[in-house]
Amino acid sequence: MVQVGILMGSASDENTISPCVEVLKKLGISYRFTVSSAHRTPLRTEKIVDELEKQGCQVFICAAGMAAHLAGAVAARTIKPVIGIPLTGSSLNGLDSLLATVQMPAGFPVGTVALDKAGAKNAGYMAAQIIALHDPEVAEALLKERQYFIDTVEKTAKEIEEKYR
Amino acid sequence: MVQVGILMGSASDENTISPCVEVLKKLGISYRFTVSSAHRTPLRTEKIVDELEKQGCQVFICAAGMAAHLAGAVAARTIKPVIGIPLTGSSLNGLDSLLATVQMPAGFPVGTVALDKAGAKNAGYMAAQIIALHDPEVAEALLKERQYFIDTVEKTAKEIEEKYR
Amino acid sequence: MVQVGILMGSASDENTISPCVEVLKKLGISYRFTVSSAHRTPLRTEKIVDELEKQGCQVFICAAGMAAHLAGAVAARTIKPVIGIPLTGSSLNGLDSLLATVQMPAGFPVGTVALDKAGAKNAGYMAAQIIALHDPEVAEALLKERQYFIDTVEKTAKEIEEKYR
Amino acid sequence: MVQVGILMGSASDENTISPCVEVLKKLGISYRFTVSSAHRTPLRTEKIVDELEKQGCQVFICAAGMAAHLAGAVAARTIKPVIGIPLTGSSLNGLDSLLATVQMPAGFPVGTVALDKAGAKNAGYMAAQIIALHDPEVAEALLKERQYFIDTVEKTAKEIEEKYR
Amino acid sequence: MVQVGILMGSASDENTISPCVEVLKKLGISYRFTVSSAHRTPLRTEKIVDELEKQGCQVFICAAGMAAHLAGAVAARTIKPVIGIPLTGSSLNGLDSLLATVQMPAGFPVGTVALDKAGAKNAGYMAAQIIALHDPEVAEALLKERQYFIDTVEKTAKEIEEKYR
Amino acid sequence: MVQVGILMGSASDENTISPCVEVLKKLGISYRFTVSSAHRTPLRTEKIVDELEKQGCQVFICAAGMAAHLAGAVAARTIKPVIGIPLTGSSLNGLDSLLATVQMPAGFPVGTVALDKAGAKNAGYMAAQIIALHDPEVAEALLKERQYFIDTVEKTAKEIEEKYR
Amino acid sequence: MVQVGILMGSASDENTISPCVEVLKKLGISYRFTVSSAHRTPLRTEKIVDELEKQGCQVFICAAGMAAHLAGAVAARTIKPVIGIPLTGSSLNGLDSLLATVQMPAGFPVGTVALDKAGAKNAGYMAAQIIALHDPEVAEALLKERQYFIDTVEKTAKEIEEKYR
Amino acid sequence: MVQVGILMGSASDENTISPCVEVLKKLGISYRFTVSSAHRTPLRTEKIVDELEKQGCQVFICAAGMAAHLAGAVAARTIKPVIGIPLTGSSLNGLDSLLATVQMPAGFPVGTVALDKAGAKNAGYMAAQIIALHDPEVAEALLKERQYFIDTVEKTAKEIEEKYR
Repeated sequence: MVQVGILMGSASDENTISPCVEVLKKLGISYRFTVSSAHRTPLRTEKIVDELEKQGCQVFICAAGMAAHLAGAVAARTIKPVIGIPLTGSSLNGLDSLLATVQMPAGFPVGTVALDKAGAKNAGYMAAQIIALHDPEVAEALLKERQYFIDTVEKTAKEIEEKYR
Repeated sequence: MVQVGILMGSASDENTISPCVEVLKKLGISYRFTVSSAHRTPLRTEKIVDELEKQGCQVFICAAGMAAHLAGAVAARTIKPVIGIPLTGSSLNGLDSLLATVQMPAGFPVGTVALDKAGAKNAGYMAAQIIALHDPEVAEALLKERQYFIDTVEKTAKEIEEKYR
Repeated sequence: MVQVGILMGSASDENTISPCVEVLKKLGISYRFTVSSAHRTPLRTEKIVDELEKQGCQVFICAAGMAAHLAGAVAARTIKPVIGIPLTGSSLNGLDSLLATVQMPAGFPVGTVALDKAGAKNAGYMAAQIIALHDPEVAEALLKERQYFIDTVEKTAKEIEEKYR
Repeated sequence: MVQVGILMGSASDENTISPCVEVLKKLGISYRFTVSSAHRTPLRTEKIVDELEKQGCQVFICAAGMAAHLAGAVAARTIKPVIGIPLTGSSLNGLDSLLATVQMPAGFPVGTVALDKAGAKNAGYMAAQIIALHDPEVAEALLKERQYFIDTVEKTAKEIEEKYR
Repeated sequence: MVQVGILMGSASDENTISPCVEVLKKLGISYRFTVSSAHRTPLRTEKIVDELEKQGCQVFICAAGMAAHLAGAVAARTIKPVIGIPLTGSSLNGLDSLLATVQMPAGFPVGTVALDKAGAKNAGYMAAQIIALHDPEVAEALLKERQYFIDTVEKTAKEIEEKYR
Repeated sequence: MVQVGILMGSASDENTISPCVEVLKKLGISYRFTVSSAHRTPLRTEKIVDELEKQGCQVFICAAGMAAHLAGAVAARTIKPVIGIPLTGSSLNGLDSLLATVQMPAGFPVGTVALDKAGAKNAGYMAAQIIALHDPEVAEALLKERQYFIDTVEKTAKEIEEKYR
Repeated sequence: MVQVGILMGSASDENTISPCVEVLKKLGISYRFTVSSAHRTPLRTEKIVDELEKQGCQVFICAAGMAAHLAGAVAARTIKPVIGIPLTGSSLNGLDSLLATVQMPAGFPVGTVALDKAGAKNAGYMAAQIIALHDPEVAEALLKERQYFIDTVEKTAKEIEEKYR
Repeated sequence: MVQVGILMGSASDENTISPCVEVLKKLGISYRFTVSSAHRTPLRTEKIVDELEKQGCQVFICAAGMAAHLAGAVAARTIKPVIGIPLTGSSLNGLDSLLATVQMPAGFPVGTVALDKAGAKNAGYMAAQIIALHDPEVAEALLKERQYFIDTVEKTAKEIEEKYR
């Protein structure tokens, strides 16, 4: 079974998207991570959406740069929630992919997260939050993560406070 | 029971957000639509998040303009999925609220939708897509909406084609 | 026969795109003007591209606003030249549609023209320039247009020079 | 014979534009690649346009950075289709050259492609698409390219899927 | 004799540029105010530059919107100082014309002033400052203007201070 | 005595800045509201800073549009805290005045608030917060304001919740 | 006693914020420098605000990147003046954090300073200016700093003038 | 005698501005190159303007980054033409300094050139163009420069054409 389908437009984005995979792994969520492009492989994109739906996919995560149409192309073909990760892929610093991902017309939402690695992680967390609505183990794992964030801040705060006393 | 909690930062945004309420109503989803501000009423915002969680809220929708912190403030206090609607509330055309909503740090995703009314509707649709994962009636209502979109395009296409023959 | 296919994402853009139709008409080029949306009617968009190719379409003109994916979706499905008209459809002044139209990945060009009405006219002119490569009548009509532009500037220049003497 | 004329504003842009030349070469299209500047050599630019027209040039490709006027200057002097490649040539990340290239007034279209190398390649592809309208060999070469894109995505997709299984 | 040549790209910009003419008139500077377009009438633009040079023109003022190339086209053909007024002529709020005017390559400066009417006035003032270097009457008129600005601020300051006492 | 000096660059900004005056009045803080321009009246600006310092001024509030230098010019001449209100005064939507106000070099801070009316009010509130550090009555008035904000949100929230029940 | 509380959202920003600490140290102002995040540790942020208020904190300095909510979250919980330092923390060059920090709604000012290190220093200087209102030693230290700036400019000016004579 | 006064806000900008000095040197124009800051040394800036006027200065060139007020501060104190060079001095890529330099209010023009080194050179060229109005030797030197630009383009064009034949 595949709970989350992760599509990126190009294999060259692997390093930016792999933190998304790590988040899902850590939270115990099954996934399929693949490559498909809205422009280079439109038919493959349609096919993957169908395959993933049949594999039980609950959430789609789509990552693309520049005129980032992948999330929109997937959103046009499913009523499952779609999360879009805009990637910095040109000299325009990701403003192009951010706007191309988020400004979807009514009826075809793409829940857009931050640019690049922070967004990749957050796409994983948001997918987990959706799955956690009906999966108490994932919910618990998410709460543990939150505690871990708190502990890290408190630990580093102590270090900073001591250093700059 | 409340399936979706809708918070807007100011009652003056009612007309922009009401299309979100209409989408939820049309799709048969229960909601609570209220006002709370990350800055003016931080305690009320915390309280509402707790109340809504107890009322069974599955998805939070938060709408705010300018330095739009409401969605982020809610995301910091729940592990339920949070959808953010950036609003055009200053002369900067919503670029301020869009960036303040979407650029969340790792661990605290806000699934951001388009600016203003298109985003308000899409927040409703995305909440419905999340609920539809475990509610076949909502899924069916979403599919009907999609058919309605198709019918509208085909009808207007026919009119345009005839007019410009 | 249809020399140019004009697709707009929504019938509500009719007034912005009709100057494109007028340019083609004036230059004696046959066209089909219709509505199709990359997101609301992805299958229809594919079908229209196929139909138009069979009707002899030489150039595709696609107009859309916000996360403007229509031109890209068409470019992914044809090797005919595609011209994109970005439309101002949100508070972001068309920066969203401009970037979503122009920043296409290698292999799938969209020749993007100016925003809104100026772009609509220029899409018509560029389509005509492509057709004129093998159609001397269209070439002549284009040269006449150029002379008309010159005459207009010279006439208004004379008026301004006299008024501000 | 020269099917495509490629002008760049400065020899220092050679590395960014050479992928355009490679695309044309690969697709079997004849070209002339030269340097001319709208500002430094306005007369040369006019002369080159005339020369190229006499050499049978069907499409002009113009690449420039900053206040990128080269494509516009060429478009003002020919009714052949002009494709503009905006280049990142200042700290403004190419926003200057993109807007200076795409926002042409009615009657003088510049089909603008993406910034820098992606745009250079796409200018080559779009020129080829225009030539392919009357040259079945180029059309076939373009279709092969498309298949190559598909094969590459599928190959890398398989690798990614296996690696992250 | 013509001390300052004012070119605007389109007669439709008359109202925005007329304050420039008024400044020159008030300061006793002779001018020629005409229409010429870098794209629609490139030959006329060249001709006007030559004519104006022969009429004794010391400073060129060029106003254009969108991909505002007029000032650059003039700067390419004269070594007289060129002042550029970027105009708001599209939904992009003049960012297009500002960048297309100011970001000139080394050797071809355009002294760019503010957008629209404030810039039109300042183009007039800057031309006058250049002429005043060798014309004491214009220098005196400029100093009177400065005093007038001071008087206006002081008068309105008094009114505001009294009103809000 | 004058606790707060309010300078605006032009009397035409009165309506945008008057909410700042109202906030100060409401909180019982004395002020002087006047006009001075960094460019049109540099000497007056220096003089006003000196006068206000002698009148006991604790905080300077400066409002200007476009290349908004007023706050910076004041900050260069006093070590009292300076608050800058950027104003929307051109087609660039206040991005110009925001950046010209906030991006001050090290040693010369301008505490910049939001654009236009929201910023005008916040300049008043921030001045009051500084004065309240040593004035318990102002502190109490500020706390009352906060309660008023809470009451307003709660009242409008009730209305919205009832209307959309 | 703690006169100034400095909060940064993440310990990874230490190097950017330490110049702020150095300014305060140099001017003889007591401070507490710690880490707290609006999103990762909302409760800790509230607690720190309370603690700092009890420790006598007069001014809060908050530094954060991306959707920079920290200053706003603190401003919502205190009526002490809050200074915000926007940090460059994504590919968007700090435009996100600048707008998320400065565009606060009426009643909750954040006096925003420049991005990154220049802003960090200025946050220190502005806090010192506020404290100097009732502390003549800090005022004197600030005046000395100003003299130091003047001396540096004059020294480097002499060097440049000699070098380029 | 000093024909051109060059002020930069900080000695750290020396390398960006030195090409301006080189242009003036090459064209045989006398200059004074110094450091003065609108904010750190406002009195020195006033004094330098007066000194330079007495030394016969015909044109002021001012270079600054971030909230670049130097050119405006000089323009407020002289009726000689002022040329502004915006510098990239923060993460905002010079958009801050460009807008802070160019958007001057009516009556106080700053002829703004391109960002950084290209602008530094163009400030030198524009100053030379102003001086050349009454100095035939400088005019001749400028024409030689133009020929040099043409020769360079033609030489590199030949190389490129041969290489890519």
